[in-house]
Amino acid sequence: MTSAFRVLGSSARNASMRSLRTASIARHTRPYASAAAATKTSNGGMTETAFFPDEAAGPTVATAIPGPKSQAAIEQLNKVFDTRSLNMMADYRKSYGNYIADPDGNVLLDVYAQIASIPVGYNNPTLLLAATSPEMASHIVNRPALGNFPSNDWAEILTTGILSVAPKGLNQVFTGTTGSDANELAYKAAFMWKRRQQRGADVEFTQEEMNSAMNNALPGSPELSILSFKTAFHGRLFGSLSTTRSKPIHKLDIPAFDWPQAPFPMLKYPLEEHASENAAEEQRCLDETERLIKEWHAPPAAIIVEPIQSEGGDNHASPAFFQGLRDLTKKHDILMIVDEVQTGVGATGKFWAHEHWNLDAPPDIVTFSKKAQAAGYYYGNEELRPNKPYRQFNTWMGDPARAILFRAIVQEIERLNLVENTAAMGDYLFTNLEGLAQKYPGEIKNLRGKGQGTFIAWDSPRRDEVLKKGKTVGINIGGCGDSAVRLRPMLIFQQHHADILLEALEKIFKS
Amino acid sequence: MTSAFRVLGSSARNASMRSLRTASIARHTRPYASAAAATKTSNGGMTETAFFPDEAAGPTVATAIPGPKSQAAIEQLNKVFDTRSLNMMADYRKSYGNYIADPDGNVLLDVYAQIASIPVGYNNPTLLLAATSPEMASHIVNRPALGNFPSNDWAEILTTGILSVAPKGLNQVFTGTTGSDANELAYKAAFMWKRRQQRGADVEFTQEEMNSAMNNALPGSPELSILSFKTAFHGRLFGSLSTTRSKPIHKLDIPAFDWPQAPFPMLKYPLEEHASENAAEEQRCLDETERLIKEWHAPPAAIIVEPIQSEGGDNHASPAFFQGLRDLTKKHDILMIVDEVQTGVGATGKFWAHEHWNLDAPPDIVTFSKKAQAAGYYYGNEELRPNKPYRQFNTWMGDPARAILFRAIVQEIERLNLVENTAAMGDYLFTNLEGLAQKYPGEIKNLRGKGQGTFIAWDSPRRDEVLKKGKTVGINIGGCGDSAVRLRPMLIFQQHHADILLEALEKIFKS
Repeated sequence: MTSAFRVLGSSARNASMRSLRTASIARHTRPYASAAAATKTSNGGMTETAFFPDEAAGPTVATAIPGPKSQAAIEQLNKVFDTRSLNMMADYRKSYGNYIADPDGNVLLDVYAQIASIPVGYNNPTLLLAATSPEMASHIVNRPALGNFPSNDWAEILTTGILSVAPKGLNQVFTGTTGSDANELAYKAAFMWKRRQQRGADVEFTQEEMNSAMNNALPGSPELSILSFKTAFHGRLFGSLSTTRSKPIHKLDIPAFDWPQAPFPMLKYPLEEHASENAAEEQRCLDETERLIKEWHAPPAAIIVEPIQSEGGDNHASPAFFQGLRDLTKKHDILMIVDEVQTGVGATGKFWAHEHWNLDAPPDIVTFSKKAQAAGYYYGNEELRPNKPYRQFNTWMGDPARAILFRAIVQEIERLNLVENTAAMGDYLFTNLEGLAQKYPGEIKNLRGKGQGTFIAWDSPRRDEVLKKGKTVGINIGGCGDSAVRLRPMLIFQQHHADILLEALEKIFKS
Repeated sequence: MTSAFRVLGSSARNASMRSLRTASIARHTRPYASAAAATKTSNGGMTETAFFPDEAAGPTVATAIPGPKSQAAIEQLNKVFDTRSLNMMADYRKSYGNYIADPDGNVLLDVYAQIASIPVGYNNPTLLLAATSPEMASHIVNRPALGNFPSNDWAEILTTGILSVAPKGLNQVFTGTTGSDANELAYKAAFMWKRRQQRGADVEFTQEEMNSAMNNALPGSPELSILSFKTAFHGRLFGSLSTTRSKPIHKLDIPAFDWPQAPFPMLKYPLEEHASENAAEEQRCLDETERLIKEWHAPPAAIIVEPIQSEGGDNHASPAFFQGLRDLTKKHDILMIVDEVQTGVGATGKFWAHEHWNLDAPPDIVTFSKKAQAAGYYYGNEELRPNKPYRQFNTWMGDPARAILFRAIVQEIERLNLVENTAAMGDYLFTNLEGLAQKYPGEIKNLRGKGQGTFIAWDSPRRDEVLKKGKTVGINIGGCGDSAVRLRPMLIFQQHHADILLEALEKIFKS
């Protein structure tokens, strides 16, 4: 990697970027400039086509963050809304593409992207076009109770959007509102399916089951569980939080179900240098998973697993491990739920991260949210539809407006080949980070995510300081687990952004 | 009540209504006609100002429901989405004001309103204006992680919207996505608050608490509970479902927390004829509530109660009962959570139903969703902010786009005085329903909701048949509990709509 990093842009440049930004919002209903219309010179004189030709050429750091305007806004907000987890006050009108802006004129390269949930750039024109369409307006103001009164275009919205990118082998969806919600809906489907297996497909509920369910007691409220993994994160509602094992602060003081947790492989990096040790570690985890499936007092109806444990520290496992889980779930007749809330929608260089595994049989359920902007779970087995209506049901059951937005996101991903872009950018980034790790071995440890698109992380002995310094050199970057720095750029992250990021990291490491 | 009911409109009339509808969507950015511009003759020659001057004059029943086009659409949808709870396939482009349309040209007066969640009419022009604003577009495509990166207009969106209608005594909000989510967030706040009371405000977590929380075990995962009431409905996620006691079909096969349920008063109607019996019944329920608070093995951190138990059958209690609950919660130092998900936002003739109670001290927490289109919980006590950041947190923490829509809803409610309208329409409707109950005593039993706006219900010995026949006479109407017909019209429901509804009901009773 050579230097193409421009020291933070002048305020004149920034003002120009902002006026472009404003113009872009205003003209969103006109055809926007073709992506091929502009190129940017990246490092080494190589050129690439910019997805956002009018994006900032680089970050601007105008003030300490938070600056005076941000501080005033935070103080105002804190009167009515808890701001203690606030990272940065944002100005989304001025944010564009890969760059997040704040009220003080700071513009940062955003490789955190709203906790991995912005897919194709701030104020993406394709998305603005969808967001201002009469179709969107109708679905915003006429939000239906989807299970009772779906709109006559709902099937089409699903098949041209959410279901057009359904994981292989899964052709149905139940929609929800958030990642936590998607996972809990999946758990409910799993419990109803498991009891059907136990009871028999066409067996009616007994009076005792109906009475005891009303008292939250056996047998109507069964002693079943969902098995998850140590350091997993699956959400923060009561069922999903019972499967989340990320950090005490997420769980303290909240009652939880007594459900089992299996160990997740703690691999050694670089993977290729520790192949046999890592294989043994994965086998140990599989063995313990099987023991828990067989012996836990509340038998699991399903296991849930993230392709890469994200909030818990970006922990990876091999395709063989996941194939082993698929085998165990088949052997013991329980479901395999893959939580793709953070890994899904392109970030790993495949549309769904579990495509990296080449499973013999698809997962039973795949949950999604974040970059999809919509949420829910995919499934394929008809038996996962409960045996009666109103068992899997709630008033809104998702949000057609967000499903329309996801359709536009999918179109944008396909138009610009963003999954392929992310795979290529990931390789570029990883190779250069390997170089930085060699140069600064005290700063980058356990670099991981090779071949997984831009879903890259490493351990840092001074992680919180690194994240904080990021803002001073123009990048917004996040952490996970106890000591990991995680990269979660958008799918429109390109080589010139990678170069800016790498140079900013080196500045931090030098300081 | 005299007859102003016009037998179902001609198809010409319907076509005209539809073209008006289309025009209204197209012209939504122009100032819409003033509400005062048109009047409709209602029964008795009385005139009233129509809120939707270009609304249908009455229902149109063109085919059996579902008609052929709806059937084809249902078949299509069923391939990818469970349709067994489908009530009616809707066409929202053609729905307007109080009327819901379907693909076959049927147009029904909608007094169910997406399970009580449409506040100010389908395709309301004020809402369409908000939905197509640049502000809305920005918030749709740039959905933030609100706890980390709020937008600099978030405080203003809250104070001019959600918080402008905050219940008296409550001045803060934590936003969520749905009613279930709002309640679970409130439960989490209650548990953290309760442990703080037990532990001491500034006491750090012990290592044992942190370790055990990761294992879903005591003491980090405490044995505390939320007390709810029999026949209550508070949602269908794992924590909220544990407090829901509506019907077995909502709960069967889903693991639940062993939390206590107190009896809810089963009052006799008309209330004024059974005053002393009802008072005794309420005292019995209060006594049992107190016993459970004192004796339940997992002590309640809070009670949660609906002002009117909605899904569970529209069960009412007196202000004295709720004042009794407020006294008990104060006495035993636990929180009072009022679930206004279905009762809130004007339907009872007050903005919040608990305003009918004149409590000595406001509830600790009030949850909202449905008609608000946004969701969350209000609170006022600073101690309900957990002692550390990231304890009450998730990626999206609500949706600013929906908060903007709620602000527009509030403006529309204020512009048209819709809370007052609903109070007046409720009185009109209730008086006329009393007349119908006298005429058809076998059809309307336990009429309830007097003085509670249009939040009216009665028991019907042939409830499901009544709901089904509703569609054949042009009304979309819902049920709740085992045998209740519930009215949940929108806030723009006027006297001429009431007359159509009353006449349609009489048709059903006669058949």
